[in-house]
Amino acid sequence: MSLYSCGLLPSPPMPTTTATRGLLGLQGMPAPELRGLLVATREMASRKPESTLAGRIIANLFFEDSTRTRTSFSVAAKRLGAEVVDLLGGNSSVSKGETLIDTARNVEAMGVAALVVRARQSGAASMIARSVACPVLNAGDGRHEHPTQGLLDIYTLAEAHGRLADFDLRGLKVAIVGDVGASRVARSDIAGMVTLGAEVVCVGPPAMAPRSLTGLGAQVSAELDPLLASVDAVIMLRIQFERYGDGKPPAGVEAPKSSPIASVREFRELFALTGERAARMKKGSVVMHPGPINRGIELDAEVADGPRSVILRQVTNGVLVRMAVLERMIL
Amino acid sequence: MSLYSCGLLPSPPMPTTTATRGLLGLQGMPAPELRGLLVATREMASRKPESTLAGRIIANLFFEDSTRTRTSFSVAAKRLGAEVVDLLGGNSSVSKGETLIDTARNVEAMGVAALVVRARQSGAASMIARSVACPVLNAGDGRHEHPTQGLLDIYTLAEAHGRLADFDLRGLKVAIVGDVGASRVARSDIAGMVTLGAEVVCVGPPAMAPRSLTGLGAQVSAELDPLLASVDAVIMLRIQFERYGDGKPPAGVEAPKSSPIASVREFRELFALTGERAARMKKGSVVMHPGPINRGIELDAEVADGPRSVILRQVTNGVLVRMAVLERMIL
Amino acid sequence: MSLYSCGLLPSPPMPTTTATRGLLGLQGMPAPELRGLLVATREMASRKPESTLAGRIIANLFFEDSTRTRTSFSVAAKRLGAEVVDLLGGNSSVSKGETLIDTARNVEAMGVAALVVRARQSGAASMIARSVACPVLNAGDGRHEHPTQGLLDIYTLAEAHGRLADFDLRGLKVAIVGDVGASRVARSDIAGMVTLGAEVVCVGPPAMAPRSLTGLGAQVSAELDPLLASVDAVIMLRIQFERYGDGKPPAGVEAPKSSPIASVREFRELFALTGERAARMKKGSVVMHPGPINRGIELDAEVADGPRSVILRQVTNGVLVRMAVLERMIL
Repeated sequence: MSLYSCGLLPSPPMPTTTATRGLLGLQGMPAPELRGLLVATREMASRKPESTLAGRIIANLFFEDSTRTRTSFSVAAKRLGAEVVDLLGGNSSVSKGETLIDTARNVEAMGVAALVVRARQSGAASMIARSVACPVLNAGDGRHEHPTQGLLDIYTLAEAHGRLADFDLRGLKVAIVGDVGASRVARSDIAGMVTLGAEVVCVGPPAMAPRSLTGLGAQVSAELDPLLASVDAVIMLRIQFERYGDGKPPAGVEAPKSSPIASVREFRELFALTGERAARMKKGSVVMHPGPINRGIELDAEVADGPRSVILRQVTNGVLVRMAVLERMIL
Repeated sequence: MSLYSCGLLPSPPMPTTTATRGLLGLQGMPAPELRGLLVATREMASRKPESTLAGRIIANLFFEDSTRTRTSFSVAAKRLGAEVVDLLGGNSSVSKGETLIDTARNVEAMGVAALVVRARQSGAASMIARSVACPVLNAGDGRHEHPTQGLLDIYTLAEAHGRLADFDLRGLKVAIVGDVGASRVARSDIAGMVTLGAEVVCVGPPAMAPRSLTGLGAQVSAELDPLLASVDAVIMLRIQFERYGDGKPPAGVEAPKSSPIASVREFRELFALTGERAARMKKGSVVMHPGPINRGIELDAEVADGPRSVILRQVTNGVLVRMAVLERMIL
Repeated sequence: MSLYSCGLLPSPPMPTTTATRGLLGLQGMPAPELRGLLVATREMASRKPESTLAGRIIANLFFEDSTRTRTSFSVAAKRLGAEVVDLLGGNSSVSKGETLIDTARNVEAMGVAALVVRARQSGAASMIARSVACPVLNAGDGRHEHPTQGLLDIYTLAEAHGRLADFDLRGLKVAIVGDVGASRVARSDIAGMVTLGAEVVCVGPPAMAPRSLTGLGAQVSAELDPLLASVDAVIMLRIQFERYGDGKPPAGVEAPKSSPIASVREFRELFALTGERAARMKKGSVVMHPGPINRGIELDAEVADGPRSVILRQVTNGVLVRMAVLERMIL
């Protein structure tokens, strides 16, 4: 079953031996396929537990650490009766000079049913998918895509606004706020949401929300406040401090060197979703965040834990999305 | 089933939404509840294997590393047919600035049946238990408690002295030797043993066995030798070198800076359980140690491996205790 | 069932309480036992999936990291229905000063069915096997042995040359090329292959292929080129850069300090299996590598991925070998 084979970088061309199953990205995925995955997720939510993947082994090939995403995939696999083996960046043979592709082909040769791949390099999952026969699931590759996060965001948006019947998102407007340009989550969100009819606005200072994002079908705005009354969801992104300077949030208000923002204080003044801003959002509008949250920086605690927050629903739906995707990739 | 909800720090007051199941500590646990867990452990020892937790997922949320405790919980869970996911300190989102509570709530939202929590902060398990609905099992929180270690120590003491029928420990006297004040194991041991009628003496230099321990119901002594002929068990604690200085046992005899002991040699002279001291213990008296042992420092190899040692029984019983606790918490 | 109890260091003498099952090495293993394991592997390849180890727990006790070997053992165990617990070097109690033996005895006391041990110290697996009652499987100990790698190499050689019926390797000639003297893989390969009748030549500069290897039953040569037309298999070894200098392959052509080779370029000129050299190998001759490969150093990419390469078959067969060994050790 050809689930999906898009999201590939434009070159080199796909050889005929390419994996025909897998989930590499949401960019270019036709609406019917996207809806198919979302419907499978909805059915997973109401289905009795079934060990449809008993006897299968899923490999988490995480060249970049991500405890939460890896745990979500592991829980999804185990709920379907599959076994999981973890190959994590720090321990892997890559540190002995082996290539990502060699590692992936080795793990495949051990007889696993699917590879869940996370890597720092944009395009890594596609590159691996071209080198193995088993399905590859992209769990985040550099700044490229994070398609299961995109699917769970779409599912949670649809759930919050009563669109679970047909996943028709027309009439819904979503703001994605923060370091959008560097975000693979945003890239997957935009692709899927726009395909299903939603309007997406990327919000941030120009260095974080560059005009080039319009190429993906989104709008771009340097101001959050005027949008608050009209959007149906605000997706706050984490400021990825660990990608700047020393990898830690600053002790004070000064942003780390080479950060595209002048200071955390300045970012908060214009873009943080404070309690005050959340109060100005329209009725029924929801707050999302892919986690982990920097409380008090991009998102105030009272909003993260408040009535508009569907952040923990995202986590719960994430397991369902991954169950649906794993089952469709493997069976 | 309200297993237990004590061991909470006195303030802030428990909100009504607090988890009503879980095991946070042995302090304040009534004797019937304590005996109930010990009886369940005894029954686990003789019961045929049963997958009573099949289809459940247990999360090991170890903000502080402990391979042995984590492995013991994993073995316990797997023996009951449960699946396990590990979230370890070094890899976790906490290093991205997320709070313990956010991590715990996220993992809970993935649909796990229980959280096994270990952390450096005293009270961390209770804090998390107040924030989630699923059962929380404290696997060691700072200097506060390590209740399953306490239970396995009590079980092993009862086993060694023929008290498995009723777990009535009256007439038994136990010495806990070493850095007692800093030990969460000692805190759990004292609470449970005193509740069941045993007499407990904390032994060490005043900086390690402070008078304040009498507040927990124990006696305090700065001398080990006079006790050897009268105690029914000696529980040796590891000197936690990694909590002082550079985290490694000293190459020579000098204790690391900021250690409460002047030197390892001095500690050994007064408090180490040497072969000579073990020979002076009364008939039937046993030697226990929560591990890992620093052989030749607090405990001589000949004693650790000698006829009085029940150290490996502790390990075996630890799995049974954790099976019993997991089953009662979850079912 | 006494599978095997050889490969022990000559002294101290084995006490009578020694484990009588386990796989510590191939040196000294009689041909019938060796063939028995290889036949069991062949049967594993054609057998339907069976959970013969359901309810058993296997512990991976990896004091030295090796993601691939550990994953292979994990996949093997899970395919037989066993559960796996991992105790890895960096996290283990060893870093708290505990001995390898204490760690092993502790894990055994938790009730595991077998210990899979990897360590930097030659003889570590044997030492542990003398201290526990459960079977111990050596997954690589220093420069001593790596018996399951040896078995999978033999199996793959037999498969490539139509010897799966009786594993009689007479008439086959094998070159092992590179840092043979430091290689536990080579040591196991030589022992098993010579026992089954193959001729083995160790090839490398004298510092890497010392004359002492003849004591194991192999020949030694300082030249690869004259052998190419006559050998039935070339086993290329990885130059273990991480054992020299800073643990990383050199950026340029200079070998790291204290390496036994003057430069990578010089090594390549004489010993690398280039495309040109592979073209001179005889018909049907195969290329093997235990991985991970340093592509472009000891082995050219076109050879690793070319028609002679059976490198991925080695990986696939490795899981079968480990399934066969685990089942015979435990049942």
